[in-house]
Amino acid sequence: MPDYPFAFNVPLLGGRPTRYDVHTARTLSAMNGQYADQAAYAALLAQGDVVVYEVYEIKRPEVVGELLHGISIVHPGRVGDEYFMTKGHFHAELATAEVYYCLQGSGRLVLETPEGDWSVQELRPGGVVYVPPRWAHRSVNTGDGDLAMLYVYPAHAGHDYGTIERQGFRKLVVERGGRPSVVDNPRWSNGNSET
Amino acid sequence: MPDYPFAFNVPLLGGRPTRYDVHTARTLSAMNGQYADQAAYAALLAQGDVVVYEVYEIKRPEVVGELLHGISIVHPGRVGDEYFMTKGHFHAELATAEVYYCLQGSGRLVLETPEGDWSVQELRPGGVVYVPPRWAHRSVNTGDGDLAMLYVYPAHAGHDYGTIERQGFRKLVVERGGRPSVVDNPRWSNGNSET
Repeated sequence: MPDYPFAFNVPLLGGRPTRYDVHTARTLSAMNGQYADQAAYAALLAQGDVVVYEVYEIKRPEVVGELLHGISIVHPGRVGDEYFMTKGHFHAELATAEVYYCLQGSGRLVLETPEGDWSVQELRPGGVVYVPPRWAHRSVNTGDGDLAMLYVYPAHAGHDYGTIERQGFRKLVVERGGRPSVVDNPRWSNGNSET
Repeated sequence: MPDYPFAFNVPLLGGRPTRYDVHTARTLSAMNGQYADQAAYAALLAQGDVVVYEVYEIKRPEVVGELLHGISIVHPGRVGDEYFMTKGHFHAELATAEVYYCLQGSGRLVLETPEGDWSVQELRPGGVVYVPPRWAHRSVNTGDGDLAMLYVYPAHAGHDYGTIERQGFRKLVVERGGRPSVVDNPRWSNGNSET
């Protein structure tokens, strides 16, 4: 039996795609330890466990040659001065790339390599960002509305969330004077220490 | 030296992306033998060798884990009653998929496998089409304006144009009564005969 082509529609003004296999909603409580300002995090969480971002994914066999793809939507908001964002991850198969196409909203894609390089790319409607192999990536919503993106990556990539959960990204995107600003993460360590 | 992330912009109302490495323009003369109505083809070509479609591609290492991506634009037009289209191809590494995202215009993605299965998927703005491994694919512009798409596929896929050049696709997309219609290709053979 062949595996048939299929199509689905991505509403240009947001909302869920007309076809998906898996819907993941990450709430604030799932982001424990990810924001620099832990007091602001605790205060916000006490008001309610809001959804920070959602992912609608098409399932495919996780083998070389297939492509996983879907829509990610980061809702607007901040924890202290740090914008709402995804957990971010390396691919478990580190030498795999990803393509993002921004459908709606405005934000930043924050990236870094295990070797210490970092990059911050702007996300705006009609913008493509290429994540080369070896670059961890996190989406940050710096706007007032949803940040929606189409993503495509090799289906054998897998995810490594643990490295980022332990130490975060080297750079944070925060609001300073009403505008997005990239600053050093005061809690980031080089991984040689757990403190 | 790391290979750095990069971004570029795809104008939502057509036009070339703000970054690309290779621009390919296929003219009518490069489509020799691809249209069913060869008399109409010769007559149109005699009026001028117009550009049928263009591709703007980002170059990447052609290895497993990387993703080739870019924008394809099929211009509007017909050869007889058959709409302007791309040459179409299998991937040389047959077991590789592709994701299309339609940015602008309207059309069809015509697909088939070596085993004889075929499929025709609609292309409209905001629509995603998944091309599973093993499916040859051709874009057809059934509208009055440009058909523009973002595409992403594994960088080790390669292209096999020869199989399609020899026998075409099983199905054609033609105008019938002012509307797109899918019909059998009268010139299609099963590859056992060159006649």
